[in-house]
Amino acid sequence: MQGEIITIGDELTSGRTLDINAWYAAGKLTFSGLRVCRITVVGDNYEMVSQSLKRAMEKARFVIVTGGLGSTEDDKTCQIVARALNRPLCRDSRMYDLLKSHAEARGLEVSPSLEKMAWMPDGSELISPEHGPCGFHLKEGDVDLYFLPGVPEQMRYLMDKFVIPDLLAKCKELPVVQSRVLKVFGLTEPKIAEIFKELKGKAGGVTFGFYPKFPENHIILSLTDKEESRVKKELDRVEGLVEKLLGPYLFAKGEETMEQVVGKLLKREEITLALAESCTGGLVGHRITNLSGSSEYFQGFNLN
Amino acid sequence: MQGEIITIGDELTSGRTLDINAWYAAGKLTFSGLRVCRITVVGDNYEMVSQSLKRAMEKARFVIVTGGLGSTEDDKTCQIVARALNRPLCRDSRMYDLLKSHAEARGLEVSPSLEKMAWMPDGSELISPEHGPCGFHLKEGDVDLYFLPGVPEQMRYLMDKFVIPDLLAKCKELPVVQSRVLKVFGLTEPKIAEIFKELKGKAGGVTFGFYPKFPENHIILSLTDKEESRVKKELDRVEGLVEKLLGPYLFAKGEETMEQVVGKLLKREEITLALAESCTGGLVGHRITNLSGSSEYFQGFNLN
Repeated sequence: MQGEIITIGDELTSGRTLDINAWYAAGKLTFSGLRVCRITVVGDNYEMVSQSLKRAMEKARFVIVTGGLGSTEDDKTCQIVARALNRPLCRDSRMYDLLKSHAEARGLEVSPSLEKMAWMPDGSELISPEHGPCGFHLKEGDVDLYFLPGVPEQMRYLMDKFVIPDLLAKCKELPVVQSRVLKVFGLTEPKIAEIFKELKGKAGGVTFGFYPKFPENHIILSLTDKEESRVKKELDRVEGLVEKLLGPYLFAKGEETMEQVVGKLLKREEITLALAESCTGGLVGHRITNLSGSSEYFQGFNLN
Repeated sequence: MQGEIITIGDELTSGRTLDINAWYAAGKLTFSGLRVCRITVVGDNYEMVSQSLKRAMEKARFVIVTGGLGSTEDDKTCQIVARALNRPLCRDSRMYDLLKSHAEARGLEVSPSLEKMAWMPDGSELISPEHGPCGFHLKEGDVDLYFLPGVPEQMRYLMDKFVIPDLLAKCKELPVVQSRVLKVFGLTEPKIAEIFKELKGKAGGVTFGFYPKFPENHIILSLTDKEESRVKKELDRVEGLVEKLLGPYLFAKGEETMEQVVGKLLKREEITLALAESCTGGLVGHRITNLSGSSEYFQGFNLN
C-alpha cells in the first residue's frame, strides 16, 4: 500500500525549521511495510496545499498531512482542505467540548481563536479525542487522509498510536520489509559500484542503496516479500555474497559502529590504546570514549 | 523570484535519512531574498522524478535538484532528467578529464562506474569544475535548473559558492527580506492569537508566524520590500506594537535564549542560583551550565 506525506508550514519552505515530521512519518510507515512515494512540503497557502493534496490523491491510498491545525491566523489547513475537497466547514461538537474543558481546566474561556480549531471539513472523524493532541481523519473516495498537528511530539504520538495501527488494520496482506546495513571503510563509491556489478542477476529481488557517511560507506540491502522467513533466508543469502565481495573492507554490520569494533578488538587482544592527535583535534579520543567501558583499553590522549 | 527544491533518494522517502539538504537550500535561498514555494522529496524513480521536475517547472523560475549524481547503480538523476527533458545523454569531456585526473592521482583507472558520472543531459554546464565536488546547470526555457550532489558537504559548498551567487546575478531587483523573532513564555497559542487580532490593519505588509517550542512560543515577524531602510523602519514599528501587546510575557528577542536571559538577570542582581531538581532530572542545570561563564552565578545542584 503506497501513500504520500504533505507537511505544511512557511517555516519549512523558508528553511527556518528542519522538517523532522516528514522524516519521522516516512520512517514509521516504511518500517511498518507501507511505502511512501513522495513527500511534499508547502507553505500555508491555498493554491499550493490544495494542488499538492489533489495530486497526492491521484495514486496514493493514504495521505498524511501535518501542520496548520493550530489556533493562530497562519493555521489554515482546515479551511484549505474544506475548499479543496468541496466540503463545508462544520463545527465538531466533540472537539468543541474538548477545547472547552481544556480551557476551563485552566480557568479560561473559549476564545474565538480556540473555537476555530473545532471547525473541520464535513465528514471529519477526530483522531484520539481522549488524549489531548487531536488530529482528524477523512475518507475521500478510496483514499484515507490523516491530518495531524505540526508540533512534533503531538504528531509522533498520533502517528504511533492511531495512524499506523489504523492503516495496518486496513491492509489485508502487508508485505514484510527487512534491510541489512553493511559498513565499509577504505573503498571508494566507484569501487563499490564496480564490485556490485558482479552481483548482477544473483541478487534476486534484493535492492541496494549506497550511502557515503564520511569516512565510511554504508551499503543497505532491502527486500520486500509476503513471507518473513523467505525474506530472512534470501537476505542471508545475498548478504553472504556481498560479504565475500567486500572482503576485509567490511568492518561492521547493522547498528555496530567503528568505535565498537575497535573496542572489541582491543579487548580481545588485551591491548590498550593511547592517542596523540594532531589534525583530528581530539575527535578520535572523543569517539573512543563515547563508549561506556572504554576506560578498560583507552589510556588517554595528548593534543598537539 | 520563486523556485522549488527537489531532493531525490530512496533513503529520504523511506525515512532512513533526514533531509537536511532541502532545509539548508531553503534557508539559504530565503535568506538571500529568493522564495521557495515547494519542496518535493522523491525516490530514485523515473516517473516520480520526472513528474515532479515538470510540475516544478510550470511556475518556478529556478529548481534546485539534489541527489542521484553518484557512481552507484541507484544514482539515476542524469538518465531521468535526460529522458524527461528530451535531451540525449552526452559525455562531458571536461567532467571526464576531471574524473580521470582524480582517479589517476589515487593510482586508479577510470572504471565504467566512474565514467558514468561524465554522461550528462545535452546542454549541461558544469558547476565548479575546479573544486572537486561537481554539479551541473541546465537552462530549460525560462527556468534555471541546478543539479547538485546529495552529499551534504558537497551540496552546501556548491550552493553557497555557485548557485546562490548565480541566481542573485540573474535577479534584477531582489527584494530585501528581514525577520524578527520574539520569544514568549506563559502565553498559550490561542491567547497569542487573540492578542494578535488587535493588530489587524495596523501591521502593514508584515506577516506573522507562530511556532510553539515547548515551553516557549516563538513569534516571527517578516517583511519583504525593495528598500532595506524601509524594511527596517517598518519592522521596528510593528515590533514596537507587538512588544506592547505581549508585555511581560516577552522574555527574549532574536538569538537570545532563556538561559542567557536568566544568566544576565542573575549577574545584574549579583545573586547566585542553586538547584534541587526532581522531575526535570537535571535539565534546568544542564541548560544553565551550557552557557560559558555560568559558574559566576550557578552553585551546583542536587538531583532527587
